[in-house]
Amino acid sequence: MASDGDDEQVSNKQVILKNYVTGSPKESDMYVSSNGTIKLNVPEGTNGVVVKNLYMSCDPYILIQMKKPNTNSSKPPVSALTGFGVAKVLDSGNPNFKKGDLVWGITGWEEYSLITDFQKMFKIQHTNVPLSYYTGILGMPGLTAYCGFHEVCYPKKGEHVFISAASGAVGQLVGQFAKLFGCYVVGSAGSKEKVDLLKNKLTFDEAFNYKEEPDLDAALKRYFPEGIDIYFENVGGKMLDAVLLNMRVHGRVAVCGMISQYNLEQPEVLHHIMSVVWKQIRIEGFLVFDYYHLYPKFLEFVLPYIKEGKITYVEDIAEGLESAPEAMVGLFSGRNVGKQVVVVAHE
Amino acid sequence: MASDGDDEQVSNKQVILKNYVTGSPKESDMYVSSNGTIKLNVPEGTNGVVVKNLYMSCDPYILIQMKKPNTNSSKPPVSALTGFGVAKVLDSGNPNFKKGDLVWGITGWEEYSLITDFQKMFKIQHTNVPLSYYTGILGMPGLTAYCGFHEVCYPKKGEHVFISAASGAVGQLVGQFAKLFGCYVVGSAGSKEKVDLLKNKLTFDEAFNYKEEPDLDAALKRYFPEGIDIYFENVGGKMLDAVLLNMRVHGRVAVCGMISQYNLEQPEVLHHIMSVVWKQIRIEGFLVFDYYHLYPKFLEFVLPYIKEGKITYVEDIAEGLESAPEAMVGLFSGRNVGKQVVVVAHE
Repeated sequence: MASDGDDEQVSNKQVILKNYVTGSPKESDMYVSSNGTIKLNVPEGTNGVVVKNLYMSCDPYILIQMKKPNTNSSKPPVSALTGFGVAKVLDSGNPNFKKGDLVWGITGWEEYSLITDFQKMFKIQHTNVPLSYYTGILGMPGLTAYCGFHEVCYPKKGEHVFISAASGAVGQLVGQFAKLFGCYVVGSAGSKEKVDLLKNKLTFDEAFNYKEEPDLDAALKRYFPEGIDIYFENVGGKMLDAVLLNMRVHGRVAVCGMISQYNLEQPEVLHHIMSVVWKQIRIEGFLVFDYYHLYPKFLEFVLPYIKEGKITYVEDIAEGLESAPEAMVGLFSGRNVGKQVVVVAHE
Repeated sequence: MASDGDDEQVSNKQVILKNYVTGSPKESDMYVSSNGTIKLNVPEGTNGVVVKNLYMSCDPYILIQMKKPNTNSSKPPVSALTGFGVAKVLDSGNPNFKKGDLVWGITGWEEYSLITDFQKMFKIQHTNVPLSYYTGILGMPGLTAYCGFHEVCYPKKGEHVFISAASGAVGQLVGQFAKLFGCYVVGSAGSKEKVDLLKNKLTFDEAFNYKEEPDLDAALKRYFPEGIDIYFENVGGKMLDAVLLNMRVHGRVAVCGMISQYNLEQPEVLHHIMSVVWKQIRIEGFLVFDYYHLYPKFLEFVLPYIKEGKITYVEDIAEGLESAPEAMVGLFSGRNVGKQVVVVAHE
């Protein structure tokens, strides 16, 4: 229920888009403003919730709101970017949330947010894990990895699985889920540090640095002499083309994203789509929102693994909203090692 | 059981590949030889079957055996091409087939064949339809259309379906199955005659001549202002690219073949694979052989429609093995109207 008093405005630092992005986002496309203010109580008679944001999640899809929509507006609105985050409820006009609740879902890149859309908002029930995990392994990326692998890939024990951007938020989990399931798992990443991480900490059977492979087809043939059954696609472009050449008959490609393509004026062309015919391959794009109903089942699956230490989860944590533009831009150059999180406030 | 006598050799006209094909097949890549001979009884102690071929089916996949395999052989073997056909059993060493049986399955482009592989051989049970139908609506193309539409596309009543090469052996059936299922159906073909056939005889809601559409994207937007739910892909290349731009969220592409691409030295590139991400599209290549177990179910489905006149089936029948090279080549230029069949012998 909304509180009656406490009508004071407080300062609200925000990450705001300065210019619509063409090509790659730059730090200068965003700015952190201290001009914002917000009332910490919910407007009377509404079912909104005011939250204090704790952690924000840097995800590739955020680029979508940075691109110019098909309208006449030449300048972006002066309001905070939005994205997945972890937050604490300060005031609530919604019977499903009460003051003090911890939640994860879509919120703003700012200190405080007034939430009015609860479709993508979950109350956090398990707090004996780092809260930042709800931007990752216990949040959208975790559910993405789980559904993408178990619901889209139709895996069989012993199958050969390849994952690109394998040390990223989703990739590192897909790899470990696939290992726990009994598959042979190889990942690609963009630095020696990430490759070592995949092999030494994240239980991958093999990993390689795609930047050091002039011939991706040859690299894949080295790790998959008998071909690939499942490709978990995070990058697109040349990697997808090389993978198509190396898929086995009845192979499955789960397309989670194509981060190598988002910044290009023109996406790269695909040369080997004919493999779909010759090898009866299935390529399927999916979106985690179609699998939200599986979140409770996913938690039952993943929480024991976390508690027993059978899954390792690597985060790259940046401190403060001021670090958000750099963290966001770094995502597209592969600067982060593990899931990129920004701490907005310590609880 | 193999007969003991009748050991005489008879003349056996054959369609033989002269040169491995690069690019498009030409009539001169094949020749019809009258030099062949065959014994009309099964070699003693074997489980083979000798058949008299009645109808042969011209299918795009035959091109595969015309292309040079990855070996050192510079010349193709001097033996008949193989393909789907309808035949009559003359002698049998196999308990499943007896003299006089009619069968359909993989046989030779020749007057008589000795069959030893029965995995793709069915005994014909229903003879109150034209026997040539077993190269088409009641054979491999029919089962392909049925499985491709009902098992790969997951259709829902009222969905919007687009079919390329729509007057071909498979396309004309997919369109009619989709109409019977309750979908809105549009087809593309390569001549006014075929477009008229689709609209006037084959129950398609709409059809267009892709050769008269300089902008395929615009053509599809005209017929699918709200987008395409299901695309039954027979041609590939530019058409697939244009379709990807016009798919709805959660659209499905069943890839049966890509006939526009088979003759190219380098297949065309695909520009719009990113649609798979944005619209959660599924693209799935399939092969009818994975669905052979559904053949009895398919017959139960399709025979009543044929008997009740609810399905129209259009064949393009060429007379005699001598016409085979021209018929085969015509397939790749779209010369045939309806399913291309070659009569080897009238029963």
